[in-house]
This record gives sequence, structure tokens and C-alpha cells, in this order.
Amino acid sequence: MALFIGVDIGGTKVLATAVSSTGRVSRTARRTTPGRRVEARLVEDALTEAVEEIAGTRRVRAIGIAAAGFVDAQGERVRFAPHLPWRDEGVRARLQERWSAPVVLDNDANCAARAEVTYGAIGGAETALLVTMGTGIGGAVVLDGEVHRGFNGMAGEFGHMQVVPGGHACECGGAGCWEQYSSGNALVRLARDAIVAGEPTTLAEACGEDPGQLTGPMVTDAAAAGDAVALRAFATVGDWLGVGLANLVAAFDPEIVVIGGGLSAAGDLLLDPARSALRASLVGSAHRDVPPVARAALGPEAGAIGAADLARQTFRIGGTRARARLRAARGTAPRR
Amino acid sequence: MALFIGVDIGGTKVLATAVSSTGRVSRTARRTTPGRRVEARLVEDALTEAVEEIAGTRRVRAIGIAAAGFVDAQGERVRFAPHLPWRDEGVRARLQERWSAPVVLDNDANCAARAEVTYGAIGGAETALLVTMGTGIGGAVVLDGEVHRGFNGMAGEFGHMQVVPGGHACECGGAGCWEQYSSGNALVRLARDAIVAGEPTTLAEACGEDPGQLTGPMVTDAAAAGDAVALRAFATVGDWLGVGLANLVAAFDPEIVVIGGGLSAAGDLLLDPARSALRASLVGSAHRDVPPVARAALGPEAGAIGAADLARQTFRIGGTRARARLRAARGTAPRR
Repeated sequence: MALFIGVDIGGTKVLATAVSSTGRVSRTARRTTPGRRVEARLVEDALTEAVEEIAGTRRVRAIGIAAAGFVDAQGERVRFAPHLPWRDEGVRARLQERWSAPVVLDNDANCAARAEVTYGAIGGAETALLVTMGTGIGGAVVLDGEVHRGFNGMAGEFGHMQVVPGGHACECGGAGCWEQYSSGNALVRLARDAIVAGEPTTLAEACGEDPGQLTGPMVTDAAAAGDAVALRAFATVGDWLGVGLANLVAAFDPEIVVIGGGLSAAGDLLLDPARSALRASLVGSAHRDVPPVARAALGPEAGAIGAADLARQTFRIGGTRARARLRAARGTAPRR
Repeated sequence: MALFIGVDIGGTKVLATAVSSTGRVSRTARRTTPGRRVEARLVEDALTEAVEEIAGTRRVRAIGIAAAGFVDAQGERVRFAPHLPWRDEGVRARLQERWSAPVVLDNDANCAARAEVTYGAIGGAETALLVTMGTGIGGAVVLDGEVHRGFNGMAGEFGHMQVVPGGHACECGGAGCWEQYSSGNALVRLARDAIVAGEPTTLAEACGEDPGQLTGPMVTDAAAAGDAVALRAFATVGDWLGVGLANLVAAFDPEIVVIGGGLSAAGDLLLDPARSALRASLVGSAHRDVPPVARAALGPEAGAIGAADLARQTFRIGGTRARARLRAARGTAPRR
């Protein structure tokens, strides 16, 4: 059996997977992302280690990379990645050469959407939006059952839509971006502010009385146990999620909205307030179908699964496209 | 020559046109829209008069209607129209019966986008956004060179995306909608406020010292003549236009953005501040192509031209589809 590997590289971790043709993950390997202000080489070393751990001695047919950043329309370059050191770099060809195996590259949310289309919650829907709630917000657009990459390959950058003029400063350089109000970071900030304000909450103990140590999973656990501060933080983040979704639904009119990313593990704690706010904020909601807001099916491995699927679909057909692509990458393509 | 008619019905006027296969308008007829709180019959009478004026004694091959409202995915019903009396009504079949000619129906901005794709400013672009700036904001999404209608037929409702939490109240029942900050209404409100505040401006005289009589064209003329208040109103409306476009471009990543509607007649007075704000607000704008913001090519007739084109494309092929559709509409379709 040919081995297809999918690797997801985010701001905090690298996840490499071996993925079967049915989307099943048979092996995983993890590394810590070295950071955003390091040599790009260090990030690529971490990727290489994770890929080699998966491959072992087996022959690798192709590798897909899901990157947390702007990937160009050709799938060649990472143009910009707020949480990674790549700046307009030809990552695909460089890693293909280093790994001596065919490599494909796409944005992480696009890969996750691909996985949810093929194996998960998007299923047969023709038009869908995926919103990934992690540290920030990522996203992807599915049209006619395929991921819509846009003219620059940058469609689906929902997290930096402005929802509050002059609002919270954002790492992107802007202000009032959606992810400043609805994301893991926003959740933790809301809960932290409540701790600092001295509100009664089990979170103070959970973080060892040091609000700087508070994490998203701590807030999720506390909310699940009924802590009022944690529940309110989820209500606020979920409400903002729904307000932003209303904007996206007005623009795209999708059949379904799927919420992925780490924060989606909170399930209805997050999704119920989002559904209410979507219905309340969406123009003409009494005169249309309001799309269901569903939790992603594939969890934190979705990006890697989608990257492996992209590699498989690109390189499966008798290797013809693979060879053509490799020849082109090496500058040895036959003249036409 | 078969006669194809396109009719645009908006909140203030009805425009009927005879349109050639090259998109040329050979005849026009106008009526005033009777209002939003009247019997639907009165609006349909106005449409009928305009269509009959165009048709005269010629045989009509098909009629397209561009309606300012939510049209369902099947093109049968107007689900909701803030400025018209239709509420979930089967307008297409009713008018087809009344007119004894094949009728097609779509949203007005979708029709305008269709016209700009076929004959105008969108041209060969695969992915484009049309934003129509009139009394409010309408919009349409072009993907793979075709108008994307969405699951409910309601994609492109950009005007009611929330840009200011708890902002200006909107006719849609929401608050802080984009069109409250960037539209003909917003332009007039800004200029009116300046007149009421006693700021020196030629607009006071233009409206006969009655700010309630101020119109968008008056503000456009004053800005073109260098009036500071009018110029500032355009700068503000244009800036908000660009901020909203940045949100849409982040989500769709289009190749081009086209601005239509009555306000687009102001040209660069409106578009220059919009271009600046788009570049300033768009995430990662230094690492991507920022799409050009172009003025629509077909002016106020775009909706009617697109409606006629929709009629032509639906009913041109030897009449086969036309007859099948008519049979289906009349319940006389052959059993399969």
C-alpha cells in the first residue's frame, strides 16, 4: 500500500499523520513548532522529523502540508503566516527536494474543509462554510462541493473581518477583528479579566491563582462543570461567533456551517449561543432557511487528513500527474 | 427578431427595456413603484404597463424580472422585499399567466452581475463581487464566471452585514448594518446633518434651505464642484465602503470588485477613498494582490439588461426549454 502522509503545521505544534484512502489515521507524530521569530529552517526541521517518524522505512508516495498561513493560488509558496517564520517562501518545492517525495501544500483550514467534505460533517452539501476556532479564527469556503481557494488562494480568511470599528488590536496589525471577540484567545481573555476583577470562579484555583496560566481547556472544563464565569465567557464568545456567522451567511447563503478547531470541542456550550445569535442577526431570517451550525466531525486531525487527501488525489492517477509535476518542479519538463 | 424584455423593479421605480442579443437597450419604459404598503396587485399593474409599453404589438419571446428582494433558489417566489409589498409570493407564475409569455425572475443585483459578466465590467473574471450602491447596498457573487445564488437564492446580501455593534437602526430590523454607513441614504444623512449643524455649504441652497429635500445627486454635484461638506460626506461613505469591501475580500478573495448602483455615478469621488480603505483594512494586503475596485459599466440599466439576458439564455434554445417550463408551470407537463 502506498503511503500518503498529511502534516499540519500551526503556530504551536506540528502534527504528521499516515492516512488511509478512507480517511483513517493509522499513525501520528508530533513536534512543537519552534516559533515565529526563528530561522525558517528550524520549522522545516521539525516538519522533517515528524514526517520521518511516520515514514520509517516505508516508501512515501506523497506528502500534503496544511499550513497556518496564506498559501498562493498555485500551492507553491507560503506568502505570509502570522504565527510562522515563512515570508513569501517557496515551501513546496524546497520540502519536495529535501524529502525526495512529491509534496503538495495548502492552507490548513482549506485542508480541514477538504477532509470534512470527503469524510466528515460537510458531506454532500454543495455550499458550506467551515469556521475553525482555535487560538484565532480560520476558515474555508466550499462551493459546488469543492474548496474555493480564491484568486490569490486566500479565500476564507474570516478571522480578520472587522466587527468592531477601533476595537481590540489584532496581531495582524488591524483592530476589531472578529477573532479578537470570538476565539480561544478571546475566551481566555474574558475569563482572565473576571478572575482579575475578583469574581467568584473555580478558574482562579484551576490556574493556580495565576491568571497568566489560564488556558482554553481550563475554561471549557469549568463551563462544563457549571462555573458561572466560564459559562458567561462561552456565552459571549458564542454570541460573537453567531454575529460573525450572520455576516458570512448573508454573503454566501450556505447550506451548512461547520465549526472546527480546538474550541469546537466545547460543543453546544459554544454552538448554542452562536445559533441563537445567528438567527437573531441574520437579515430576513424569518423568510429563509437559516443554515444549521454543526460541529466538525474530524477533530484536531482534520487539517492533516485533508492534506493527505490532497496528496492522494493529486498523485494517485498512475503517477502521471506526479511525474509531470516533479519534472516541472525540477525544470526537466519536456518542451511542448 | 424575437423580443426579449428585461424589467427592473426597485423601491422607487420600474424600468422596462427591450434588449438585443449584444446587450444593447433599444427601448425603455418607466413607471413609479406604487410603494411598499400597497396591494401587490398595484405593483404588478405598474410592471404590466411598462412591459406593454415596450412590447407594443410585437410578439414577446420572454420577459426577465429583476426584483429588489429575496428571490428563492428556484426563481419562483419573492420571499421578502423590504421596499415592495411582496411577501413570499409566487410572482413568476402569476405574471407569466397574466402576460401570456414566459417569465423568469431573479434578484436585481444578481441580474446586474449577470449583465456585467456578459457585457460589462466583470468580463472574463472568474471570481468577482458586485456591490450595488443605491438607497441601500445590494450585491452579487460571481464564481467560475457565473452568478452564485446560494442555497436559498439569497447570496450577496452584503448590505445587512453588521459593521457597527449597536449602530444605526436599519429598515431590516437590525442595527449597525453596512448600508447604514455606506449608501445613498448614508451620504444624504451625513450631508443633511452638516446643513442642520450650520456648516457652510452650497448644499443649503441646493435643497432650497430644506434639508429634508436633499438628494444624493445634489450631494454628488456639490462634491464635483468642490463643496467641502459634500466631499467629506463622500470620503466618509467611501471609507466605509472600503472597510466593508475588506471584509468581503478577506472572505471571497475575488479577482475584481465592481461597484454599481446609482451612487457609482460619482466615480472616483466614491471609489478613491474606498480603494484606500480597502488596502488599509485588508488583512495581509502587503502579501497578496489587492483586487481592483472598478465602476460598473452598464449604469442604471444593468439589472434590466441582466434580466433580459436571463430570459434569453433560458428560452433561446429552439423554445424547447421554454415549452417544457411553460407546461410545467401550467401543470400540463407530460408524465415521465
